[in-house]
Amino acid sequence: MESNNLFETIERVAVDIFSRESLKKRLETGEPLKIKLGADPSRPDLHLGHSVTLRMLRKMQDKGHEIIFVIGDFTGMIGDPSGLNKTRQPLTLEETRSNGQSYFEQVSKILDPAKTRITYNSDWLGKMDFAQVLRLAGKYTLARIMERDDFSNRYASNQPIGLHELFYPLMQGYDSVALNADVEVGGTDQTFNLLVGRELQKDYGKKPQEVITFPLLPGLDGVEKMSKSLDNYIGIDEPPEIMFEKCMKIPDNILPDYFRLTTDIVEDEYANILSHDIRQAHFMYAREIVKIYHGTDAIETAEQRYLAIASGNAPGDMQMISVSGSRAPIIELLKQAGFASSNSDARRLIEGGGIKLDGKTVSDINLIVSCDAIISRGKNRFVKIHIG
Amino acid sequence: MESNNLFETIERVAVDIFSRESLKKRLETGEPLKIKLGADPSRPDLHLGHSVTLRMLRKMQDKGHEIIFVIGDFTGMIGDPSGLNKTRQPLTLEETRSNGQSYFEQVSKILDPAKTRITYNSDWLGKMDFAQVLRLAGKYTLARIMERDDFSNRYASNQPIGLHELFYPLMQGYDSVALNADVEVGGTDQTFNLLVGRELQKDYGKKPQEVITFPLLPGLDGVEKMSKSLDNYIGIDEPPEIMFEKCMKIPDNILPDYFRLTTDIVEDEYANILSHDIRQAHFMYAREIVKIYHGTDAIETAEQRYLAIASGNAPGDMQMISVSGSRAPIIELLKQAGFASSNSDARRLIEGGGIKLDGKTVSDINLIVSCDAIISRGKNRFVKIHIG
Repeated sequence: MESNNLFETIERVAVDIFSRESLKKRLETGEPLKIKLGADPSRPDLHLGHSVTLRMLRKMQDKGHEIIFVIGDFTGMIGDPSGLNKTRQPLTLEETRSNGQSYFEQVSKILDPAKTRITYNSDWLGKMDFAQVLRLAGKYTLARIMERDDFSNRYASNQPIGLHELFYPLMQGYDSVALNADVEVGGTDQTFNLLVGRELQKDYGKKPQEVITFPLLPGLDGVEKMSKSLDNYIGIDEPPEIMFEKCMKIPDNILPDYFRLTTDIVEDEYANILSHDIRQAHFMYAREIVKIYHGTDAIETAEQRYLAIASGNAPGDMQMISVSGSRAPIIELLKQAGFASSNSDARRLIEGGGIKLDGKTVSDINLIVSCDAIISRGKNRFVKIHIG
Repeated sequence: MESNNLFETIERVAVDIFSRESLKKRLETGEPLKIKLGADPSRPDLHLGHSVTLRMLRKMQDKGHEIIFVIGDFTGMIGDPSGLNKTRQPLTLEETRSNGQSYFEQVSKILDPAKTRITYNSDWLGKMDFAQVLRLAGKYTLARIMERDDFSNRYASNQPIGLHELFYPLMQGYDSVALNADVEVGGTDQTFNLLVGRELQKDYGKKPQEVITFPLLPGLDGVEKMSKSLDNYIGIDEPPEIMFEKCMKIPDNILPDYFRLTTDIVEDEYANILSHDIRQAHFMYAREIVKIYHGTDAIETAEQRYLAIASGNAPGDMQMISVSGSRAPIIELLKQAGFASSNSDARRLIEGGGIKLDGKTVSDINLIVSCDAIISRGKNRFVKIHIG
C-alpha cells in the first residue's frame, strides 16, 4: 500500500490536519481506518462543493479504508424546538431514511458503494437518557463551546441562541465516540465540530480521531460557498447539458480552484490553458465534469446543446466571420464584426458589459477566442465567428 | 377559610410574590393548592434558616393546602460530571432515599406530616430521553439563562461553567411542570429558578405557578446567610442546651430578624424588650426556640446548662455583687466589680473586647443587665452579679 502517497495526496488539498504526524503514522501502518463524514439529512442534493471531500474519500477507499456516513437524523427529527428557525420542520423517520438512501445513491457516483456505510445517529443518540446527556454536557464548559464563531458572534450581537443548539457540536462529536472513528473529514466550516469529536473521544477514554478539513468550493457567484439554497451550485445529479452550461458560467478567477478541487487534471495541464485562453479552459473544465458524472459519451451532445442555447437569441441569418489561424483576440473580432471602430472603442464596450460570447458577458479585454462562437453586442447585434 | 388572612400573613414575610393578584385570587377560592418546595438531598440537616419558609408552609397547610417537597435526587445521583466541583460526589439511590426520609422527619417538627408529600425528581427526569431534553432546552435561550447572577458573574470573570450546569434551573423548573405545582416557595436566592418553573409551565401549556420568595436568615456570624457549611447555623435537630447557647450568641443587630422570621411572637411583644434589654431579649428568644423544637419542659434545663457552661471558666470562690432594683448598666457593674476605675475606663474595656457576660463578649457599652450573670475581664478576673 502506498500510504505515504495517500498522505501526500491529502496534504496537497487539505486546509488543516490535526495532527499531521499522527495521521501519517496511522496511514503508514496500512491498517484499514474508519473514516467518518457527517451528512445533513434535510439537504440530500449533492453538488460539486460536496465532491471536494468525497473525491478525497474515494482516494482513501482505494487504499482500503472504510467510509462511514453519519446521517444526522436525530436532530432532523426534532426540528427546532425553540421555534427560532421557522424553516426547520421536523422530519419523519421515513423522510430521514429516504433522504439517507438518496444520499447513498448520490455519493455512489464518486465512492465505491461496497466500502461505504451509511449510519443514522438516532441509533445511539435516541437511546441516551437525561443522565447520559448531562454527563456528555459535563465534558464541556460554556466558554469552550462559545469559542465557536457562530455562537460567539450571535451572542455578542444579541441574537437568540436556543440552549438546545449548544448541544449540536456535542452530538456530532459524540457520533465519533459511538462509531470509534479513526478519522473525520469535513469542510473548513466544520473545524470546530470535528475537533469536539476528537476531544470527546479522549474524555470517553478512546483514541482521538484525526481531523482533516478540506477547502470550501466557492459557488457560481464567486462569493459565497457553493450551496443549493443560494442557487449558486452545480449538482452532481444534474443533466449533462445543465452541468455544461453552469460550468461555462464559473467566474474566470475561481476556475483554477474548480480544476484543482473537483477534477483529477494535473496542474501542468490546466495552468497553461488557463493563462492563455480562459474560454478554452472553461470548455475543458465543462467537458471533464460531464465526463466524470455522465461519461465520455455525454460530452458531445452537452456541448452542442450548450452552444445552441448560448446562441439562442441569435437570428438565423447572422453574419459569419472567418478568422484564419487557431486563435484571435476579442478586440480584433469586435472590430472585424463592425461592433467597434477602434481598439479603445472595443475596450470601452467590453468594460461597459455590452459584449457577450456565446451568451456569457465578456469581462476580460484580453480574452482570446480559439473556437467557433457567437459574439453579440447588446440585444440585437450578433455575429458568428469561425476560427481556423 | 380565612384566605385573605393567609395572603396577608404571607405578604408580611415574603420578599416577592409573582403575581400578588393571582395568588390572592387563588387563595380566595378556597381550593386546596399544591405548594412546591425544592430540597437539596446532599444536605439533609435543617436549621432555623430553613424554618423561615417551613413555618410559612405550615400556615398554608393549616388552611388546607398540600405541601410537596421535591428531593433533587436526580442531579445528586449524577454528581458533577465535569469534575469542576470536587466535593460533589455522586449519591447512591439508597443515600438519596435515606436523606429524603431524614428530611421528612425533620420537617415534621414544623409541618403536619399528614399534609406533606415527599417526591423524588428522578421519578420523572430519569425517564426523559435525549429528544425530550432537547425540547426542554429549546424552551430557553442562552441569554435568558445567563440572566442568572451566578452564571453571568462566573462567565464575566472567566470561571468555568460546565454546560450541564445550565440545565439545573431547567430541571428544577421542569419539576413544576411534572407536578402541576400551583405555588412554589423558596429563599430569595432561588428567585431565578422559581421563575423558570413558572415560564416552563406556560411553555408546556399549563397554568403558571405563583412564586413566593422569603427572606434569607443571616447566620450567627451576622454576615453570611445561615448555612451548615459555614458553621453559623442553629440546627432544628440540635439538643436544647446547644440551641439555647447558640441563640444567646446571635448578634444583637439581627436578633429582631430572628424574632420576626422564626417565631410567632408578635412584634409588640419583642420590640420593647429588644430596645430596653438586649440580653433579656436573647433569653426570651432562646427560650422560645427551645420551646418550639423541644417543648416547654426543656427550657429550664437548657437555660441552667447554658448558665453553667457560660460560667465554665469561672473559679468557685468568685466575688458576688448584689445590685438592688431590676436592672443595671454594664458600665456601673464594671466599676462596682473593680474592673474599671471610671465610666471612660469601662467603655475602653468594652470597646477593647475584654469584657464578657456569661462567656459572651460584650460589644454594647450601653448594655443593661437585668438578671443574674457572671461578668469577666480577661481570662482570670470573674465576678458574680445578683440583680434584685
